[in-house]
Amino acid sequence: MPSLTPIKGGLTAPTGFLATAIHCGVKEGNTSRDDIALVFSDFPAIAAGTFTTNKVKAAPVLVSVAHLRAPSSRAIIANSGNANACTGPVGMDSALRMCRATAQALGVAEREVLVCSTGRIGVQLPIAKMESTIAKLPPLLGKKSRKAAQAIMTSDSFPKEAAVECEIAGKPVRVGGIAKGAGMIDPNMATMLSFITTDAAIGRADLRKALRASVAQSFNRITVDGDMSTNDTVLALANGRAGNPTLAFGTPDFATFQAALDHVTAALARMIVKDGEGVSRFIDLQLTGARTDREARLAARAIANSILVKCSWFGGDPNWGRIMDAVGYSGARIREDRIRISYNGLPAVVDGMPAPTPPARLRAVAKKKQFTITVDLGLAGGAHRIWTTDLTTKYVEFNMGE
Amino acid sequence: MPSLTPIKGGLTAPTGFLATAIHCGVKEGNTSRDDIALVFSDFPAIAAGTFTTNKVKAAPVLVSVAHLRAPSSRAIIANSGNANACTGPVGMDSALRMCRATAQALGVAEREVLVCSTGRIGVQLPIAKMESTIAKLPPLLGKKSRKAAQAIMTSDSFPKEAAVECEIAGKPVRVGGIAKGAGMIDPNMATMLSFITTDAAIGRADLRKALRASVAQSFNRITVDGDMSTNDTVLALANGRAGNPTLAFGTPDFATFQAALDHVTAALARMIVKDGEGVSRFIDLQLTGARTDREARLAARAIANSILVKCSWFGGDPNWGRIMDAVGYSGARIREDRIRISYNGLPAVVDGMPAPTPPARLRAVAKKKQFTITVDLGLAGGAHRIWTTDLTTKYVEFNMGE
Repeated sequence: MPSLTPIKGGLTAPTGFLATAIHCGVKEGNTSRDDIALVFSDFPAIAAGTFTTNKVKAAPVLVSVAHLRAPSSRAIIANSGNANACTGPVGMDSALRMCRATAQALGVAEREVLVCSTGRIGVQLPIAKMESTIAKLPPLLGKKSRKAAQAIMTSDSFPKEAAVECEIAGKPVRVGGIAKGAGMIDPNMATMLSFITTDAAIGRADLRKALRASVAQSFNRITVDGDMSTNDTVLALANGRAGNPTLAFGTPDFATFQAALDHVTAALARMIVKDGEGVSRFIDLQLTGARTDREARLAARAIANSILVKCSWFGGDPNWGRIMDAVGYSGARIREDRIRISYNGLPAVVDGMPAPTPPARLRAVAKKKQFTITVDLGLAGGAHRIWTTDLTTKYVEFNMGE
Repeated sequence: MPSLTPIKGGLTAPTGFLATAIHCGVKEGNTSRDDIALVFSDFPAIAAGTFTTNKVKAAPVLVSVAHLRAPSSRAIIANSGNANACTGPVGMDSALRMCRATAQALGVAEREVLVCSTGRIGVQLPIAKMESTIAKLPPLLGKKSRKAAQAIMTSDSFPKEAAVECEIAGKPVRVGGIAKGAGMIDPNMATMLSFITTDAAIGRADLRKALRASVAQSFNRITVDGDMSTNDTVLALANGRAGNPTLAFGTPDFATFQAALDHVTAALARMIVKDGEGVSRFIDLQLTGARTDREARLAARAIANSILVKCSWFGGDPNWGRIMDAVGYSGARIREDRIRISYNGLPAVVDGMPAPTPPARLRAVAKKKQFTITVDLGLAGGAHRIWTTDLTTKYVEFNMGE
């Protein structure tokens, strides 16, 4: 394993990256919180992104996808308080105007700016007010990762930052990032934004490969409530300022970089799950023994998104009957008499029937803040792992109104 | 439309059907409630059934499927308090012993008895105690439909009965039924039992056709929480005592019978949804304009089972953004700019964007106990209708522990 050193500084830890945030009042009634964030690379960076698979895509998603075709990127402009989704041609125009205002303020090209929005759906952005606010951002830029992380929060209860340093060909290389989540968190990244920066020198195609692999093992493995949003976006910028020889896919140096990237995305993904709205428990769900990885994913998702299973987790009740039930309707092929379920390694179900473990011992595990459930279908080698949470009365209260 | 007269009497309304129930103590600590129900036809009846599609099937489901192959059926024995699921060979033996004890008590053949269980998963039935209790049932038989409906309740808050009379070739023909639901209610019938009786004379293949069609339009259209149980069963018995000429598929008389059957199953299905655990609102969700009926079903189910959509219904919040979001990840083909959503006919979304309806008017609809949401994908003729509910804090509390 390559040696990774966690460091401070979030997405401004890598050389050459600056960030800041400002209060604009994107959402009516938001009187003081910062709600526009800017990320800037003082050198032209190459960029990669992964986006929501929801067929309803917000305007900023469409604009960022288009701008990623530019040869270099310089900045990310993002707002909370309004998702700019279901806003039609006016919304598209607003997303473009956010990029244009940022480009003018920074003296870069419009297509070098990527854009994200998060918040309420179906409301037009107050774009004129936002343009004049964005103009004030450049002089405020600094090593202000946390300020940016705070500005993109919606119902998040804490800002999410991570950074790590590794050594590549004798040079220190850094990867940093921020994220926001909470609510609607699901594999395929729902109402989730994450911005990753690195000073590594890497080619564009390789950055894409690295990001895609990293997202698959982190943001796409988490679920709070099974919904996928219209705005989910992960953006990565690499500006080469570390001065390492350009990374090449398949080399040990590339593996080191991938490990550093994976460390940051996994750390951010876990923070998102733990900050799920009103969540009280964190469950590491490991599905093994399925006929295929795809069927393992079906079964794991059916369990992790079952309202009844999640309610029993809230109650600290090791109700494996509901897990059996979810596996049964998941669409995965099963043999009931092969299924094994355990809680932190304690067998609850063996061959489809209750194990002799005393219920009190299982209950003690299910009452922990964090535990692992292993569901082994006993058929073949298909596996899938999901980080998920319980469903609480607080979550329902949180999401019942506007 | 054939003329149907709602009548009293539930599943004992049709001539020749008797029912009763008794307290046994199937579930430890249940000290007084009736928990075993018996339904009996004084004439040999033909029978049909539809069962859970969950791949984890409870022992009584497997036994009833086998017993439905017998040329005639005489009785249904059912218990609450224990699902006899995930109970292995011992559980299979217990389900068979329930049938045997009933057959001996009634003087009929073992395979003329159908069996159902509902309640906790993974616990063996106290079968010896149940056998001696079942032996006491025959002298208690009478027109006691309600007593039977009460005995099969688990978390239901009220017993569910319906009956209707129609005229076929000058003879009064009756269809009656009871059901239990609550919790885990989903299309494909979850933790749901329903017993339907009729004195119509009808062939076995035709009864099967009629039942399948009726279930597709009723029990398979309801969802509370998206889970499907291991025990769901709908059984129909027809004893021919009405004396009508045997019904033939495709005739007007058959259509009359089908309408009577549909009336009973729809009434029972609606009662089940309204009695969903801790439910506060009933939503009639009509999905139209999909490319196919299958895609309409995908989109309708994604909406009806979205935790976030259900939370907003609880709050009386017409949050159509979450509906757009659910449609977007449902797997149904969409064009965002064709989608229309309305609440009791008031447009909320037109062509994928907010309609000019004042939000206060939409909110007034969403705060009703019962309302209709129409989602029109605007692509083709695929349609699907679901009856569903909100997700409440009371529901979560209800389901968090044992």
